[in-house]
Amino acid sequence: MKLQVRDLAIFGGQSLFACPLAVGNPNKLDRDAFLARIADVLDSGQLTNDGPQVKAFEARIRRVTGTRHAIAVCNGTMALQIMAMACDLTGDVIVPAMTFIATAHALRWVGLNPVFADVHRRTHTLDADSVAACISPRTSAILGVHLWGNPCDVDRLLAVAKQHGLPLLFDASHAFGCKSHGVRIGGLGDAEAFSFHATKVLQAIEGGAITTNNDQLADRCRRLRNFGITGLTQINDIGTNGKMSEIAAAAGLTSFATLQDVIEANKRNYTQYQTGTADIPGFDLIRLTADHRGNAQYVVAHVVEQKFGMSRNDLLPILRAEGIFARSYFEPGCHKAAPYTERQIHQPVDLPVTDGVLSDVIQFPTGTSVSSDDIAAVTDVIRFAQRHSAAVDSFRKAQNSQLVPHPQDPVVFPSLPDAA
Amino acid sequence: MKLQVRDLAIFGGQSLFACPLAVGNPNKLDRDAFLARIADVLDSGQLTNDGPQVKAFEARIRRVTGTRHAIAVCNGTMALQIMAMACDLTGDVIVPAMTFIATAHALRWVGLNPVFADVHRRTHTLDADSVAACISPRTSAILGVHLWGNPCDVDRLLAVAKQHGLPLLFDASHAFGCKSHGVRIGGLGDAEAFSFHATKVLQAIEGGAITTNNDQLADRCRRLRNFGITGLTQINDIGTNGKMSEIAAAAGLTSFATLQDVIEANKRNYTQYQTGTADIPGFDLIRLTADHRGNAQYVVAHVVEQKFGMSRNDLLPILRAEGIFARSYFEPGCHKAAPYTERQIHQPVDLPVTDGVLSDVIQFPTGTSVSSDDIAAVTDVIRFAQRHSAAVDSFRKAQNSQLVPHPQDPVVFPSLPDAA
Repeated sequence: MKLQVRDLAIFGGQSLFACPLAVGNPNKLDRDAFLARIADVLDSGQLTNDGPQVKAFEARIRRVTGTRHAIAVCNGTMALQIMAMACDLTGDVIVPAMTFIATAHALRWVGLNPVFADVHRRTHTLDADSVAACISPRTSAILGVHLWGNPCDVDRLLAVAKQHGLPLLFDASHAFGCKSHGVRIGGLGDAEAFSFHATKVLQAIEGGAITTNNDQLADRCRRLRNFGITGLTQINDIGTNGKMSEIAAAAGLTSFATLQDVIEANKRNYTQYQTGTADIPGFDLIRLTADHRGNAQYVVAHVVEQKFGMSRNDLLPILRAEGIFARSYFEPGCHKAAPYTERQIHQPVDLPVTDGVLSDVIQFPTGTSVSSDDIAAVTDVIRFAQRHSAAVDSFRKAQNSQLVPHPQDPVVFPSLPDAA
Repeated sequence: MKLQVRDLAIFGGQSLFACPLAVGNPNKLDRDAFLARIADVLDSGQLTNDGPQVKAFEARIRRVTGTRHAIAVCNGTMALQIMAMACDLTGDVIVPAMTFIATAHALRWVGLNPVFADVHRRTHTLDADSVAACISPRTSAILGVHLWGNPCDVDRLLAVAKQHGLPLLFDASHAFGCKSHGVRIGGLGDAEAFSFHATKVLQAIEGGAITTNNDQLADRCRRLRNFGITGLTQINDIGTNGKMSEIAAAAGLTSFATLQDVIEANKRNYTQYQTGTADIPGFDLIRLTADHRGNAQYVVAHVVEQKFGMSRNDLLPILRAEGIFARSYFEPGCHKAAPYTERQIHQPVDLPVTDGVLSDVIQFPTGTSVSSDDIAAVTDVIRFAQRHSAAVDSFRKAQNSQLVPHPQDPVVFPSLPDAA
């Protein structure tokens, strides 16, 4: 418990967490179940190339998404690439800038140009009006992102897509298991792409999938996943190696067994963050807008400086010094990432909401590895920082020092799992 | 033992192999060692994102290739894509058409145009004169393939590359552990790409790597593998997810333990095929031209119809009916694959040698799963077919039936491991 400002670790006090709490710490796979499945794979002799584990994993995904097809691939970025190639996209694709960089990079990697539209501050998902303002003759698709598991405004996006005859696709990396007004994520638009990275509620260590109800599109995704091969001596498409191995699929199947537990833990955590911070001025947890709060896999807030008394960028190093590795996803924003600013990309609209969100958004540790005591300690520090924001500011000025990141950061987190 | 033509399974005789012999059957991973490594990974809590298993795997690769850098990635196709992107290639890249389609597709997937040059019949590797004839102002690189582990004619390719100021890259998917005139594959040209697919001598189930002695190029490959991320809020490149998981790296490390045994088994097999077919007219095993025959992971022959008495295409169904799943890699040839013929690609030179090779080349099962008795049975059938080629032809005509593939093929081999 911090009693005075000098008790904060950033000013020399003891860190709350000797072992830092991270955003996106993997939810553990059941060890015995996973090892047993791997033994089965080794016994079968088929280690990859669309084997029984992959087929079983795809069947489980279909059951959750309610789609006719699920095509498992090696990671979520590959799912986006294959989905885009299967739709024969060309030129520009409209995406939010408020997303993990992979959404934009996946398009650019296969020669498409992401054009960035603005989002709603309430949900962090695409604003259909901003999308409409981005459409040009070069536009070949709209790619929404169900960020934090918050479903896009599908009806309005669909109206814009239909009006312009464009395919509507979704990056559902954060939204496995979510529903929107009773409709399951996975079957929206023409196709959706999921990530099953180790940091996700459902994980295959590295993995992803495309889901769709379009038979032709599904066939093409399967073909593109395996080099476009259609027969022993027939190659009918420009494909790649997007294959998920049997071992990765075995991890995915193992993860399914704990999916509900993980989601329940996330919801408990979210509720505790919510009640624990409800009275903190200027600390606004964003609402989970999926039905029944979806998978609750991210705890995301806005730090409103005028009310909170300090900015998100001043709060982050205080937390990190305590061993609370909160994040500022997705700084700098795709539209301000060097590869896109340097390219002088086509950017038809301003992104005032995105820019605002990027300046004050913050993510907190959750998942099964975070305990109720951990969260209580985190919310206490947030409250303490807010209540003593003026004193912190004076202390900081007195020390004549910037609030610098915790010196351990680069060592402890050289390869922290990323969000997608 | 076949005594008369009617004993051949294609004409109703008993198949030699109830359980078909396949080209590219994975060499088994040591079960206990692999499971123990996976247990370590689960204990460590780090499942992916450049962890200790990946680092250890990269160190082992560097030791074999003698290069300063090895960047492990999720598969061999990804290694080719990242290598091309790291070199900032544009426009055309000269490659052989005699290669697995992934060589061409990896380029095309990232927006480059493969231009196909001819190969030497002796080695099936790029002909430097043909490469020189393909060079245009649009050419940005030469990508040789060490097919079957046979090293490219590096000196002559390097001379052409230097003369035109082009990077020289290699697809070394088949050539792990090989040397050419005392120089190890992996450090040739500007960079080389390996595949560690389950069918390779060294396997990570799905995996690949880029090796290079160029520090800058290596840094860029590492960056491209992880979304171009260079810091917590810094993204300096258009990257992708090319990450190898800790589990895949654990498989790779496990595979290292048996690498020498696998190579020795391959060499014994090759020698037995060689001695067992030396007296068969028109059956020409291609020489392994790497030092000490390299890794000997492919057994490749030409069936010269005039001498053998039947064509490769007539021999294949005879073998397959016996349960010998020989292959005709890499039919139809990249230059004749639909995606490239349909695109009306730039094809500046004829490929007479490639076309000849593609019409009469055949690959045979090898690896640790193939026994000496198996190979004796295979070479006996080849000899029998050659000796009775006239009778086979009459029989076939009498039956008024084409030699059709074994009816089981599509069922038994829906997803046979491919060569790269």
